Amino acid sequence: MLDHTSFDVLQRIRIVLSRPSHPGNIGSAARAMKTMGLSRLYLVEPKHFPDPQADTLASGAVDVLQQATVCHSLDEALQDVTVAAALTSRRRELAADLHPPRTAVADLLALARSGQEVALVFGNETFGLSIEEVERCNLLVTIPGNPAYFSLNLAQAVQVMCYEVFQQYNDNLDHLRPNIDLATREEVQGFYRHLATSLEDIGFFRRRNSDRLMRRLSTLFDRARLQREEVDILRGMCKQMQYLAQHQPNDAPPLDAEP
Amino acid sequence: MLDHTSFDVLQRIRIVLSRPSHPGNIGSAARAMKTMGLSRLYLVEPKHFPDPQADTLASGAVDVLQQATVCHSLDEALQDVTVAAALTSRRRELAADLHPPRTAVADLLALARSGQEVALVFGNETFGLSIEEVERCNLLVTIPGNPAYFSLNLAQAVQVMCYEVFQQYNDNLDHLRPNIDLATREEVQGFYRHLATSLEDIGFFRRRNSDRLMRRLSTLFDRARLQREEVDILRGMCKQMQYLAQHQPNDAPPLDAEP
Repeated sequence: MLDHTSFDVLQRIRIVLSRPSHPGNIGSAARAMKTMGLSRLYLVEPKHFPDPQADTLASGAVDVLQQATVCHSLDEALQDVTVAAALTSRRRELAADLHPPRTAVADLLALARSGQEVALVFGNETFGLSIEEVERCNLLVTIPGNPAYFSLNLAQAVQVMCYEVFQQYNDNLDHLRPNIDLATREEVQGFYRHLATSLEDIGFFRRRNSDRLMRRLSTLFDRARLQREEVDILRGMCKQMQYLAQHQPNDAPPLDAEP
Repeated sequence: MLDHTSFDVLQRIRIVLSRPSHPGNIGSAARAMKTMGLSRLYLVEPKHFPDPQADTLASGAVDVLQQATVCHSLDEALQDVTVAAALTSRRRELAADLHPPRTAVADLLALARSGQEVALVFGNETFGLSIEEVERCNLLVTIPGNPAYFSLNLAQAVQVMCYEVFQQYNDNLDHLRPNIDLATREEVQGFYRHLATSLEDIGFFRRRNSDRLMRRLSTLFDRARLQREEVDILRGMCKQMQYLAQHQPNDAPPLDAEP
């Protein structure tokens, strides 16, 4: 299970919201951040902050808001930062490289791992980042989308970027996986032999190629990666087939009779 | 630029919301879908639909709502679907494989490209997908996140998955890139020669290793991938340096004098 203390790399990735108008978005951003293991929020001249609406939308992430740093300029918010990524969806007449989140986040995470302070910078809800703000950054990031309709609000954009960060940082789902007790190859082979015998017993192979059929069946079961419990269930079925075959009344039709 | 008609693969990926309670979430899901090029929405027993709040939150994506299919059961919503991915964040005592969005979406996209109908299935806001609903699906997907605080609402989860789909489908940002007129290698080499001459002229190399310095400088400029216009600007600077060196007043100190 992922430990809280292992988030130190994520501590070097800050989220900067420049001139946000709606406190609800600040709250939603905090919630999105915490859900994805991020905690360092910088607010440049927020219109309303602190604000009860931000607290409401932050839900269980009010601590992120309480620890947020309010700044008077983007320069202040980028103190100690070596690589700042500006989120933009507009065509910019800039020579800076434009990256999708995947490669940009890989880059930022590698820098954070090497001890650098990095930032993801988001602009105002209505007018985005100004040209001066973009020039403070040294990486341009654009979330790809439908060119005919692109409507991602500030909170959604923060959500997508934070997801991308955590996804690349750690996509280990072990804590959600049930403990799987896979059968050993020996147990599986034992089942295959038992299955072959019982299918023989019930007359399944009489007019069929048993080798070919068994190969198909074992391929199918191998693909499913049998668990020990499943092998037990399947062998129970085999036993039941064999019991049935042995207790056939004498006047019953052969099991492989054509209907 | 990405063409609308090229979205045919995305047409085979449906979003299924099972028993959604809040019409606002249906609207936000439609907006997230359209932003990421998806359009096929299936609603299983929505509590309120159609609903003005759904329309409001769909913003420009009301067409997705208008074309949505309302179903009475998940089975109905999964008609023709060969692979249905259940979104879950709970630990399930199921043997089905659990995947992060990245690998699950790669799988679904490959299937959609080969002509299969696939689905992403989301449960109710409060209680998620029931065990019966999960059993209708053959893939389990979990969005990774902070194990100590995981709070992703229905609309955010749909947003993240739709982003992942579009990101893998097409992360081409060409329509947002300015037309870049890169300098040819010949032009760049011409600049390097010009730079070397002008630095020589202003006496920059007098106590320094010119080869080593020029190698450092050319490495730096190569990394930046010079554009034609930038080469012109830089050569203008070189010319200016040379002009300055040629017009030195006779009584001026040598340019490389120690301060």
